[in-house]
Amino acid sequence: MITLMTDFGTSDHYVGVMKGVILNINPEVQIVDITHAIPPQDIHGAAFLIDSTYRYFPTGTIHVAVVDPGVGSERRAVVCQTETAYFVCPDNGILTHILRDEEHVRTVAVENSAYFLPEVSNTFHGRDIFAPVAAHLSRGIPINKLGSPVAQPVQLPIPKPQVIDKAIIGQVIWIDCFGNLVTDISQEILESLEEQNSIVICAGSARIDHLNRSYVESAVGEALAIVGSFNRLEISINQGNAAQVLGLKRGDRITIRIT
Amino acid sequence: MITLMTDFGTSDHYVGVMKGVILNINPEVQIVDITHAIPPQDIHGAAFLIDSTYRYFPTGTIHVAVVDPGVGSERRAVVCQTETAYFVCPDNGILTHILRDEEHVRTVAVENSAYFLPEVSNTFHGRDIFAPVAAHLSRGIPINKLGSPVAQPVQLPIPKPQVIDKAIIGQVIWIDCFGNLVTDISQEILESLEEQNSIVICAGSARIDHLNRSYVESAVGEALAIVGSFNRLEISINQGNAAQVLGLKRGDRITIRIT
Amino acid sequence: MITLMTDFGTSDHYVGVMKGVILNINPEVQIVDITHAIPPQDIHGAAFLIDSTYRYFPTGTIHVAVVDPGVGSERRAVVCQTETAYFVCPDNGILTHILRDEEHVRTVAVENSAYFLPEVSNTFHGRDIFAPVAAHLSRGIPINKLGSPVAQPVQLPIPKPQVIDKAIIGQVIWIDCFGNLVTDISQEILESLEEQNSIVICAGSARIDHLNRSYVESAVGEALAIVGSFNRLEISINQGNAAQVLGLKRGDRITIRIT
Repeated sequence: MITLMTDFGTSDHYVGVMKGVILNINPEVQIVDITHAIPPQDIHGAAFLIDSTYRYFPTGTIHVAVVDPGVGSERRAVVCQTETAYFVCPDNGILTHILRDEEHVRTVAVENSAYFLPEVSNTFHGRDIFAPVAAHLSRGIPINKLGSPVAQPVQLPIPKPQVIDKAIIGQVIWIDCFGNLVTDISQEILESLEEQNSIVICAGSARIDHLNRSYVESAVGEALAIVGSFNRLEISINQGNAAQVLGLKRGDRITIRIT
Repeated sequence: MITLMTDFGTSDHYVGVMKGVILNINPEVQIVDITHAIPPQDIHGAAFLIDSTYRYFPTGTIHVAVVDPGVGSERRAVVCQTETAYFVCPDNGILTHILRDEEHVRTVAVENSAYFLPEVSNTFHGRDIFAPVAAHLSRGIPINKLGSPVAQPVQLPIPKPQVIDKAIIGQVIWIDCFGNLVTDISQEILESLEEQNSIVICAGSARIDHLNRSYVESAVGEALAIVGSFNRLEISINQGNAAQVLGLKRGDRITIRIT
Repeated sequence: MITLMTDFGTSDHYVGVMKGVILNINPEVQIVDITHAIPPQDIHGAAFLIDSTYRYFPTGTIHVAVVDPGVGSERRAVVCQTETAYFVCPDNGILTHILRDEEHVRTVAVENSAYFLPEVSNTFHGRDIFAPVAAHLSRGIPINKLGSPVAQPVQLPIPKPQVIDKAIIGQVIWIDCFGNLVTDISQEILESLEEQNSIVICAGSARIDHLNRSYVESAVGEALAIVGSFNRLEISINQGNAAQVLGLKRGDRITIRIT
């Protein structure tokens, strides 16, 4: 099984062509779209979403992630094999979370042009390199045929939330299509708070003093805090768009004051 | 075969993750997207579109529809089995048209957590409950294993067009991406008009005195009336967007005056 | 294998229903979306994208392209068979590039209603005619069962770039979702320039004096020229949207001055 995540959009033929290339090499493989609406060149976003996705797929799934502002330059392409999955992507930081979390990881550079399309364009390695390499992997070629080992794939610096005496200071790391503000404050951090503590969550102008278990516990239009499907603190508005209403964007600070 | 209809959009990983969960349980099943662009929390829209979709799929298809503002609350999840299909959705009215039209319907509450993911989040039952339940159904588990029968699933009130002496008064119930205004005035109602009657269809400021058989019978930019693919009266503009030009929205009145 | 390209968008159920119809007739066939975001009624765009797509698919693939402003009128539907592919579409010019480039082409009118849905609507032949015909083709029916030969399918006039003494005058023929301006100036034309020539590429207000091999050779925000994945000259902006920044649209002139 092969999954695809790109910033190619779906208004062009780019994703369809990648699928054609894959199915030409392996007509039996199943292809699943994760999303093609990663904001253009947003490597941080792709890194976060692929990390939130791959655990839900069958063992052996090949995840292709192409957000590739450096296409055509000297940036490497890599394949990374973990105990349960393969990742095929440019070596630009998309693997950051996976390299941090997984043990027993092998990464190779994608160098062997025998597994590429015969002609490689300047601008569309998704079609010419990443798709055919993924298709060949799905047919069982071992990754050492693709190229030489990479000791240190690129990793992006990921700031951690600061847990200090009377506060937790995190930030917005993803905004979904509902406008939910996903933070880097994990469920584990929240669970470390003492039961008797009172909290005030500060998200833009909103002040929230408890965690919801569902959206509908709050009135329509009211800002609320909830541990969402990423197992992280999210700021939402019941039947509204928190990002728009609160005027917050990725990187903006979310603070929990503890008393 | 499993179909998916949600308001999750395709810019996040949500739909991709649902597919991963399904394929983890049943790697052989075919998954078809209906749409993921139901307007957020638009249960009426989902109810209308699923009703317009399921008859075109093979017998035994499992239709998953997740438009779920009540996620995490006490609202029920249900599986509804008809003679030709299964429906997996929150019990919030999505099944309204199906329950009205189908005979021999069995509905059960989705209660047996053996068919859920091990961890169920507060906010994403599409991934944690609806996807795995659909996947297990596709492997053949009988619906009575899922939970106890539901006598009266939630049904939304659906106003019917008024057919009075000299007029038919309907409303816009869907606007498609071309801006076509789909009404609740069915082909049957239109056929009940006498051949010798003259009609004037009033849609916003437009006055239309006949039914087209094709868009191109009208000049480019002209408002027209046609029985569309839902077997309902639609108001369109040849190569234009009727909703925008006429300033009409869902719920707005469309009247046929008969003389 | 069947591919789908339409202007139906993905916010309605239209594409999902086409897939249901296909799978009802041939449950085994693989369906691949190319795009459903062709601008409404943009036959030129569909013709260009299908031409840029089909070569990447396995031999025997059936390409369905429905951009069909004339639906319901007397316009023909056709199936075109080349040595490697089938095309199913309205006879309105979508096949222009394929008919120009391919030899050994057979085209038939789609007339035999035995291969349609039992009821054919006024407005949605994608569902009622094109999808079932493609599904029957995928089961192996020969195209002469569908209808009588068409000697001259509709072809759109496609202006060629003018190659004159000191200049090449082309135009923008596609703008992708990144805002890259794809021109009709092919790699072959560019390669015909003498090595010692200097060039100045004029694209709106931008003046570009060389061809890039990658986006990142230029500074962020700078206009650049590159032979892109269509094997054509493209005007781009590194990490920016060339169409927006340069204010150019399809049909606008791109000139190469040679000195």
